[in-house]
Amino acid sequence: MDIKIGIVTVSDRASQGVYEDLSGKAIMDTLDEYLKSDWESVYALIPDEQKLIEETLKKLSEEDGCCLIVTTGGTGPAPRDVTPEATENVCTKMLPGFGELMRQISLKYVPTAILSRQTAGIYNKTLIINLPGKPKSIKECLDAVFPAVPYCIDLIGGPYIECNEDVIKCFRPKS
Amino acid sequence: MDIKIGIVTVSDRASQGVYEDLSGKAIMDTLDEYLKSDWESVYALIPDEQKLIEETLKKLSEEDGCCLIVTTGGTGPAPRDVTPEATENVCTKMLPGFGELMRQISLKYVPTAILSRQTAGIYNKTLIINLPGKPKSIKECLDAVFPAVPYCIDLIGGPYIECNEDVIKCFRPKS
Amino acid sequence: MDIKIGIVTVSDRASQGVYEDLSGKAIMDTLDEYLKSDWESVYALIPDEQKLIEETLKKLSEEDGCCLIVTTGGTGPAPRDVTPEATENVCTKMLPGFGELMRQISLKYVPTAILSRQTAGIYNKTLIINLPGKPKSIKECLDAVFPAVPYCIDLIGGPYIECNEDVIKCFRPKS
Repeated sequence: MDIKIGIVTVSDRASQGVYEDLSGKAIMDTLDEYLKSDWESVYALIPDEQKLIEETLKKLSEEDGCCLIVTTGGTGPAPRDVTPEATENVCTKMLPGFGELMRQISLKYVPTAILSRQTAGIYNKTLIINLPGKPKSIKECLDAVFPAVPYCIDLIGGPYIECNEDVIKCFRPKS
Repeated sequence: MDIKIGIVTVSDRASQGVYEDLSGKAIMDTLDEYLKSDWESVYALIPDEQKLIEETLKKLSEEDGCCLIVTTGGTGPAPRDVTPEATENVCTKMLPGFGELMRQISLKYVPTAILSRQTAGIYNKTLIINLPGKPKSIKECLDAVFPAVPYCIDLIGGPYIECNEDVIKCFRPKS
Repeated sequence: MDIKIGIVTVSDRASQGVYEDLSGKAIMDTLDEYLKSDWESVYALIPDEQKLIEETLKKLSEEDGCCLIVTTGGTGPAPRDVTPEATENVCTKMLPGFGELMRQISLKYVPTAILSRQTAGIYNKTLIINLPGKPKSIKECLDAVFPAVPYCIDLIGGPYIECNEDVIKCFRPKS
């Protein structure tokens, strides 16, 4: 089974070309370091429009067959921040442990980590994870949650993902 | 007031007799160690069917008068895992602190703890708590959350539960 | 822009005059210590009636123009405890990180902290935060979450709040 991973940058300004999408690039680079298996990225750069985010998540799952979609941006308390709402609308199962752990990790660096509303959930055979917007926080959060990602994808019927164990220790419980 | 505790094992395979229900037994043994008060268990072993889980939770509360129902199994991200959804549908009040603490405790042992969606809530005069499926994790989680259980049952109008203080320290704040 | 902060004590007994509202007073005193900016409090003392709590939160936001509303009481598992439900009904965005952090802090003091269902969210340009009922716990929780409050209010279009940095270190990330 091919490993396809969706990387969705949600940002009004980056999607208008006001600045470069460094966050999407940070996710791409981090996953490249983590994954020993061959994988293919499907990239989208879109504005903070809830309906568009929902359509993008569905398309990446249904049409592109991504087993994992990682979003960046739109998780704060500002009026235009709607990525968690879009994620919750699309997913049929929520995984609150991802958001809890990512906020806990970010709290070690900034007290404003509690303002992040990032979450994760399952849609079809796709795991969707919201990451924060800043490249530095992206790496911190991925380092914390990624060890559980390959096993989660096993459980929802996705491809078998192998990691570079010297970079990140992925965990599969012996059943 | 009699102390009745519902123990619900949710598992397709155990309910088909493919393997023995060691999880239900682990809960029973742990509660036997904790409780100084006399108590009676009401046991159910059912498949991962959301509607059946909901009916079982309601029956144990309404007909059997359980002040506490503890479930095991069905809290992961797999398609058949629907225990948290059933619990949320039945409960009128959710208690997110239980899930948060149990995931935090389990994270000390396995990074896949964030995949667990277990929660807790109130239905009528019954506290319902989801536990993980594995006997070892069950004990770790119960040790963490049980100190708050007797006081919670006081607050919702249930029987007064006394613990073996040398085994588990239950806490009732002085008001 | 004027800084108006709503302080809402939710308590059947205090609202009937059975005892003095020490919790509202504790919030007032704590905010007085924190804030260097001039501010004005808008106070309400109401019973545990969900509809009344919702109306009070809306009025403080819409009519009084509070940028922050802090509630105390009604966050437990008892049948009359409905403050989180009222808050969730009013808010258009939830901020789960506040409840998670406050429970984590309170857990250092009492194992029954997991029974608290307190949360936070945004309604219009107002941040609403549920605090526990006891004066001691109020201070512990505010100390933990307040460093993120002024920046949150910036993000939702509220007034610029300055803190007494020797009392509480508020944090605004450099963007």
